[in-house]
Amino acid sequence: MPAQTEMNFKALQLLREDADKIAQLISVQLDNLTLPKCPLYEEVLDTQMFGLSREIDFAVRAGMITREQGQQIMHDLERKLEDLYSKVLLKSLDE
Amino acid sequence: MPAQTEMNFKALQLLREDADKIAQLISVQLDNLTLPKCPLYEEVLDTQMFGLSREIDFAVRAGMITREQGQQIMHDLERKLEDLYSKVLLKSLDE
Repeated sequence: MPAQTEMNFKALQLLREDADKIAQLISVQLDNLTLPKCPLYEEVLDTQMFGLSREIDFAVRAGMITREQGQQIMHDLERKLEDLYSKVLLKSLDE
Repeated sequence: MPAQTEMNFKALQLLREDADKIAQLISVQLDNLTLPKCPLYEEVLDTQMFGLSREIDFAVRAGMITREQGQQIMHDLERKLEDLYSKVLLKSLDE
């Protein structure tokens, strides 16, 4: 595997792991919250999303991944967070 | 130049450019402030430093730069900001 594809593969793997860590962090937070309307939750999420977006932007500028690959990682994470968020909402409506 | 050193060179160049952008951003802010004790200044600085630290951490984990190279970039930027900060303080004492 030529160096460039290897670097692309490694970068994508790292970025996906970081995205999963954010989803994991938020799902743990959500498990402990009735409604995620608490400022800390928002702040943790914003900070982590900002950090990941800077990593992705850097990887694109360094030629490690394409802009589309980067957008896909953010998009997948946002969808995961939406799922988590709606589950919490449904749960809180049931109670 | 083998791919790895090329990638190392490119990553360092990008990270140093990002560090310079932060120093530039802060020096512009400082020029317009008497004393940098305004919350916005602190928040912009914190956010930008956090973003750069995440880029550096990513570059280290991806094997693009060494941990020492990353620390050097942050260290140089912090020293630059200290210089900027002391200049503003001296200026405000003169007034």
